[in-house]
Amino acid sequence: MKLLRYGNAGQERPGILDANGKVRELGSVVSDINGKTLSEESLKKIASLDINSLPLVDEPVRFGPCVTGVGKFICIGLNYADHAAESGLAVPEEPVVFMKATSAITGPNDNIIKPRNSTKLDWEVELGIVIGKHASYVDLDNALDYIAGYCVINDVSERNFQLERGGQWDKGKGCDSFGPIGPYLVTKDEVTDPLNLHLWLKVNGKTFQNGSTDQMVFGPQFLVHYLSQFMSLQPGDVISTGTPPGVGLGQKPPLYLNEGDVVELGIEGMGVQKQVVVNAK
Amino acid sequence: MKLLRYGNAGQERPGILDANGKVRELGSVVSDINGKTLSEESLKKIASLDINSLPLVDEPVRFGPCVTGVGKFICIGLNYADHAAESGLAVPEEPVVFMKATSAITGPNDNIIKPRNSTKLDWEVELGIVIGKHASYVDLDNALDYIAGYCVINDVSERNFQLERGGQWDKGKGCDSFGPIGPYLVTKDEVTDPLNLHLWLKVNGKTFQNGSTDQMVFGPQFLVHYLSQFMSLQPGDVISTGTPPGVGLGQKPPLYLNEGDVVELGIEGMGVQKQVVVNAK
Repeated sequence: MKLLRYGNAGQERPGILDANGKVRELGSVVSDINGKTLSEESLKKIASLDINSLPLVDEPVRFGPCVTGVGKFICIGLNYADHAAESGLAVPEEPVVFMKATSAITGPNDNIIKPRNSTKLDWEVELGIVIGKHASYVDLDNALDYIAGYCVINDVSERNFQLERGGQWDKGKGCDSFGPIGPYLVTKDEVTDPLNLHLWLKVNGKTFQNGSTDQMVFGPQFLVHYLSQFMSLQPGDVISTGTPPGVGLGQKPPLYLNEGDVVELGIEGMGVQKQVVVNAK
Repeated sequence: MKLLRYGNAGQERPGILDANGKVRELGSVVSDINGKTLSEESLKKIASLDINSLPLVDEPVRFGPCVTGVGKFICIGLNYADHAAESGLAVPEEPVVFMKATSAITGPNDNIIKPRNSTKLDWEVELGIVIGKHASYVDLDNALDYIAGYCVINDVSERNFQLERGGQWDKGKGCDSFGPIGPYLVTKDEVTDPLNLHLWLKVNGKTFQNGSTDQMVFGPQFLVHYLSQFMSLQPGDVISTGTPPGVGLGQKPPLYLNEGDVVELGIEGMGVQKQVVVNAK
């Protein structure tokens, strides 16, 4: 299933994509696409519906973030061997973990807001994991049970804030609009092999990232197991699993985003995002 | 005013401390102590009440975290010159920013859960700032307007996870129970000078931290201004402002917490926390 949220920012309604790619209303079944909706029981209930009997939504619609009520937005750094190389860093022995502010979350096609004083605004297409079940000290073998589904994420980053303004990365990762999520939360039954997905990103029509999740150092199953050793994960939490090569920082010379630039990105079977860069007011 | 939340975990009710130090019910006035309750208008309404006319709560009570609905739990690292020195690190030129998982938040007297595989469980008494108003690109001069109040925080840390397991600090900062907050959210009108507060922490009755916020490198006013340049702050967001010297990592030799240890901490005018260390199941 492809779950989604449509409508104006802050007023989104739950929806689902039908077999013809049309948006159908899901508001009579669930109140929103959030942690509660992602329980096995609730997903089973949605799966049992006759989707074509749900009301069609007038399109085009604005897509909101595909999940709301996100308690934690956890990111994995340097999780593709080639991306670590282009960043001039070694492949980590254990996952590198940092967090994005949940206030950074936006819809997949909303503007990227370039912060004041930003000089190195960058992109990162990533496979997102959405947690469906409370996870604490989860065995590796069972870790997939805790995943509700997957989505496209642009882990928008400001490299000056992240790397040159002292201390930790979080400062350059959590700016408003730095977390487009969606358009779809694709439930895991539709994702046969999360470690064999094509993912790509273009800027102004030119392809910069063109990779496969088969290059991930630590896959979704391991990451859920691993993170759950450090902190409990709650339904609706999002884990962004790192980016393949081709970010702006890795270009020679480095190339960064400016007002008017258009970023398009997608993952096989999970839909496409498109953002325009605007300057912060 | 000293706002608080009392009752069993997950079922807390809003309350307020009266002039005699007794807990009074506030549930007839506000639904909870959260971002909405911290607006100027809402705080004015509470301030206009005859507190002694509110129903007394049967004591003793369990105190919950003094604020709920926390969207971001932002921490400042190395923000006391002496603590930077004991950590063997230079005083930062700009605030060091990292994040604690909001799932780490607990009541001020709840157990500290020592995670599995934890070997270096440490303490940090800190002054917490609670945001009252949406803050984005706030001028330094106006930054105090965005603060609703202050509270005691124990920024519980696992130094092995934080410093020796690769990458960023967040891994050792956001474990469940690592964020006791409260007992009181002390509104800023009661805090004449947040940069002249005594703060202390004892382990098993022995004083380890005994400092003053006058040693802070970056004070609350600057921090709100500074952080708002990187991300918007929402009502109910919490900022933990760093710790004075005397953490376990700074002892010679280093000293860490184990099952049964008792941690007590407090800040002048803001109440006291007391936690017992238990092992994760």
